Amino acid sequence: MSGESIRITINGKEYEVEKGMPLGELFKLAGVKKAIGGKLGDRILDLQSPVTEPGEIKPITRKDAESLEILRHSLAHIMAQALKEIYGDKRVHLGVGPTTEEGFYYDVEVEGHSVTEEDLPKIEKKMREIIKRDYPILRHELSREEAVKLFKELGEKYKIDIISKIPPEEVISVYKQGDFVDLCRGPHLPSTGRAGSFKLTSIAGAYWMGDSSKPQLQRIYGMAFWDDKELQERLRFYEEVKKRDHRRLGRELEFFTIDENVGAGLILWLPRGATYRRIVEDYLREQHLKRGYQFVYTPHVGKSKLWETSGHLEFYKENMYPPMEMDNETYYVKPMNCPFHIAIYKSKVRSYKELPVRLFELGTVYRYELSGVLHGLLRVRGFTQDDAHIICTEEQVNDEIKNALTFAMEVLKDFGFNEFKVFISTRPEKSVGSDHQWEVTTQALMNAVRELGLNYEIDEGGGAFYGPKIDLKVKDTLGRYWQLSTIQFDFNLPERFDMTYVGEDNQKHRPYMVHRAMLGSIERFTGILLEHHAGLLPVWLSPVQVAVIPIADRHREFCGKVLQRLKSVGIRAELDNRDERMNAKIRDAELKKIPYVLVVGDREVENGAVAVRGKKEGNLGSMGIEEFIRFLQNKLEAKE
Amino acid sequence: MSGESIRITINGKEYEVEKGMPLGELFKLAGVKKAIGGKLGDRILDLQSPVTEPGEIKPITRKDAESLEILRHSLAHIMAQALKEIYGDKRVHLGVGPTTEEGFYYDVEVEGHSVTEEDLPKIEKKMREIIKRDYPILRHELSREEAVKLFKELGEKYKIDIISKIPPEEVISVYKQGDFVDLCRGPHLPSTGRAGSFKLTSIAGAYWMGDSSKPQLQRIYGMAFWDDKELQERLRFYEEVKKRDHRRLGRELEFFTIDENVGAGLILWLPRGATYRRIVEDYLREQHLKRGYQFVYTPHVGKSKLWETSGHLEFYKENMYPPMEMDNETYYVKPMNCPFHIAIYKSKVRSYKELPVRLFELGTVYRYELSGVLHGLLRVRGFTQDDAHIICTEEQVNDEIKNALTFAMEVLKDFGFNEFKVFISTRPEKSVGSDHQWEVTTQALMNAVRELGLNYEIDEGGGAFYGPKIDLKVKDTLGRYWQLSTIQFDFNLPERFDMTYVGEDNQKHRPYMVHRAMLGSIERFTGILLEHHAGLLPVWLSPVQVAVIPIADRHREFCGKVLQRLKSVGIRAELDNRDERMNAKIRDAELKKIPYVLVVGDREVENGAVAVRGKKEGNLGSMGIEEFIRFLQNKLEAKE
Repeated sequence: MSGESIRITINGKEYEVEKGMPLGELFKLAGVKKAIGGKLGDRILDLQSPVTEPGEIKPITRKDAESLEILRHSLAHIMAQALKEIYGDKRVHLGVGPTTEEGFYYDVEVEGHSVTEEDLPKIEKKMREIIKRDYPILRHELSREEAVKLFKELGEKYKIDIISKIPPEEVISVYKQGDFVDLCRGPHLPSTGRAGSFKLTSIAGAYWMGDSSKPQLQRIYGMAFWDDKELQERLRFYEEVKKRDHRRLGRELEFFTIDENVGAGLILWLPRGATYRRIVEDYLREQHLKRGYQFVYTPHVGKSKLWETSGHLEFYKENMYPPMEMDNETYYVKPMNCPFHIAIYKSKVRSYKELPVRLFELGTVYRYELSGVLHGLLRVRGFTQDDAHIICTEEQVNDEIKNALTFAMEVLKDFGFNEFKVFISTRPEKSVGSDHQWEVTTQALMNAVRELGLNYEIDEGGGAFYGPKIDLKVKDTLGRYWQLSTIQFDFNLPERFDMTYVGEDNQKHRPYMVHRAMLGSIERFTGILLEHHAGLLPVWLSPVQVAVIPIADRHREFCGKVLQRLKSVGIRAELDNRDERMNAKIRDAELKKIPYVLVVGDREVENGAVAVRGKKEGNLGSMGIEEFIRFLQNKLEAKE
Repeated sequence: MSGESIRITINGKEYEVEKGMPLGELFKLAGVKKAIGGKLGDRILDLQSPVTEPGEIKPITRKDAESLEILRHSLAHIMAQALKEIYGDKRVHLGVGPTTEEGFYYDVEVEGHSVTEEDLPKIEKKMREIIKRDYPILRHELSREEAVKLFKELGEKYKIDIISKIPPEEVISVYKQGDFVDLCRGPHLPSTGRAGSFKLTSIAGAYWMGDSSKPQLQRIYGMAFWDDKELQERLRFYEEVKKRDHRRLGRELEFFTIDENVGAGLILWLPRGATYRRIVEDYLREQHLKRGYQFVYTPHVGKSKLWETSGHLEFYKENMYPPMEMDNETYYVKPMNCPFHIAIYKSKVRSYKELPVRLFELGTVYRYELSGVLHGLLRVRGFTQDDAHIICTEEQVNDEIKNALTFAMEVLKDFGFNEFKVFISTRPEKSVGSDHQWEVTTQALMNAVRELGLNYEIDEGGGAFYGPKIDLKVKDTLGRYWQLSTIQFDFNLPERFDMTYVGEDNQKHRPYMVHRAMLGSIERFTGILLEHHAGLLPVWLSPVQVAVIPIADRHREFCGKVLQRLKSVGIRAELDNRDERMNAKIRDAELKKIPYVLVVGDREVENGAVAVRGKKEGNLGSMGIEEFIRFLQNKLEAKE
């Protein structure tokens, strides 16, 4: 403490106190109880921290959201201490241990041991012991030299790495509980005994500093809340997420597989998944043609010249596949379709009469991602975009944006998404394009969302350097938001590729260009869709819509006729003629999430009918075959 | 002459003559007139050549096909002499000058000049002069040293290259006419004055020895026949081929473009071409599904492991795109889909009950081709195969082959090909697979063609080392044959990838595998199809099937209704509402080879009718709209 004094306001009352007094003492002075920290401006302080700035301090209790930050921070330390007690002080090297939206994690290296899910209960048990011991959590400030010395002694090589990156003007602090000490800015609980409810949930790999050339640590995740009821609720949600995991569903429904001999992040679409994908693609094509888009196909490789002109080799190279040298030229597998669509636009002189030109492709692109972040269909190295480029005049900008946004929402609704969030990102500090261009286009985005009566948020200055955009997020069954559609202006590529059209004045003009994707990547979208519907896709998307099951051998012939009739009207039906019991067949059909099962016995054969079971609806009773067809066609029509 | 004598038979009479006597003298002796050469065994001798082997000599006159060989050979020399006279002896370096099916070419380098089509009349004129001068064409034999000396003096660097490659035991001969001399085995005419009708047709680039690291020469093509009428006929055919050139049609019909910034041999499908391609793909998918094939999608890149296992890196590497190094692994853009389909087959344990498994993909592959051989859509570096792999038991082999062959012919007929040639290629000397496997499968191929009553040829020993195959060639409108479909057994990959199925005996068995493509490459097929139909595709394949043209402004509204009605039943129609005269619009529609043009004037509006003009049929008179729709739907149904 310095002897200097500062003015602090707490609960509306002002105090003149010594600068550097710990927050806990200050609260005692002000008669604040139950607080486990305080907020001064944007900073969260724990009770151990010295108060060095004047201002108003808002006490934080367990009821305040900020208190979870403190709780989770301390639980990360408690987990680290538990690991050291279990595996030995010198064997455990700690990386970083931040909080997450629902808990915390710590990146650790345990020499000679790979922590598995089986270890988690043991670690949790040790954590509960440490909590029971109720160690006070003490804060100390150290000089840089003292800190380096301390962590060298402890064998904490990663901590020394961190210290070397702390700016010189910043204070270095450590927190101590029992004989455990960790480099940390805080905030923390006053003692380990104050920790709430927690559960360790999973383990993943993580490169030190996110750099694949550095060692890989293990990231151990935990979930934590004050209230056990809340924790249990979140855990149930987490279980539900696991149950809906598209990787599991993809395997069970035989949608896709990933083969290590083919490569990480490269999807093989199995027949059922490929059937679904083809339905999606046919639907997208039809919708685009109906709205005046033109369909094209372009190659998957192209000369480096394209990416030099576009600028991608300058600022996007690390996301591209490696180069191929051929005939003294460098080729790349394409990370995006834009330069190809521009080549098609430029393949002839364009008149204003032709605009807007709307080029659409189901374009498969390849992008490099670190192998550690690849995740089923959600994060891949090759994917197919529903990619369009709209090239138009200034006068057309408003209508094009409004139509593109309406189009995207109509499509997403057909897939069963009904809640959207809209974000408009505007001009950042560094940008290309004129003031006029930014104004016209940003205004067009605003007009579109307003005319469509949508709620939206504005991300001021959050746009790309080459133009403003609209992002559309959808809410899934579990309440998670996923960004899918993007409508993005581009003032950069039309310049770089010298795109023009001949105007009414017979002069060359620069057109406006919009990048637009609705589903984004069909792979990622499919992952989200499978999780959203827990695998039970809307019937128009199901690769097999109907399973026909005979009760006994004598019903097979009639079932064959039913199958033929369904197929003849384009219904995707399968006949299960295996030598299995009827109940086993029904169970199999349900496991494969086939929306409708038709069971045929004596009575059905007699009446020319089928007994219908809906996966969603349950028993639907007996229907004539034509009646069932009408029933199903109504559902297909309504995209239910 | 050696003084030795040999026995020669001419026209049934035997002569004992001195060995080495020139054929011309021998014919004089035997009273043979009009002959311009003779055939001894397989060899064609000219009159200047010494006869050194005994046997029967068949005189060759202008009526014999072999005589064209002699004529064309000499015309190549006459062209070379003409070039030297025009551009100067020392500036012209000669490569090789062989005959072709309809004429000849010579690969030449003219220092400081690139020969163009404009030069051809001048060269032809000079050739006619040389013919008129009627130089005797004389044959001389030289020692290797003399030959090298001679061509060094002449500055003929490529000839010296050739001499170095002539086996030591072979005689080296030159032919001389006037002061022109050329290294040549013959045969040749007795004098330049005997040359028939010819025409120089085109110029192309050709690397010396076909090696792109060596200099590029110019290949000048000529056509030649004895009879001018025949020449004119072939030239007309050649003109027709030019007129049907798919590269020209592709540009005029806006089907595709190739952009040098994207890369040679990489096709950009423009909206009209892409619409056509999508129709083809939809049709193929429907046909495959109907026949029990399963549709899949696989990535365009994969790890080197796949091609190591398949063996392609060993024997096919020069046809593959260059490697990409990523994450300490080597990746390749795929040259074929097989390893991916095998990965899908192997993604689960297969039971005999599941077989046959028929996997189908519209798989886009990339193969390296020398830039010099690339040719529009016919020879490209990226193409999409209608690629299927049939995996089955031995018992299923017969049916699968018969069905695959029937399937291919049905599909090709739908595209307007009705004449086929079938080739069966059998076991070569070096092969993998057991005798039993070769017997079963070769027999299956034979059975299929016999049961279908097809004429076929057998290419004994011409099969791939890994299995026998059927190739299907189609005849186009110009009488040219194109190989399209292949049904190819493979005993190699099932071994290399250890493909198995569990049999009724609960044991693992090796399945049979068939590679099958019907169109082969959609790109190449489209080139052939455009040339076959001279751009006027069958109406079911036309990207725009109907153009609706109002005579005056007051007919536009009715035309709009016609357009909507046509579109509502899935007809691809366009309304030409430009401010152009009706005749200009009709001409444009014809240039775009739109099969039907509907013209609407006062009378049509009054009667709710359209005046129909068929591109093939001409004026079809007035039809009610529904009548026209029925008319068109009948054509679509019949794939006319």
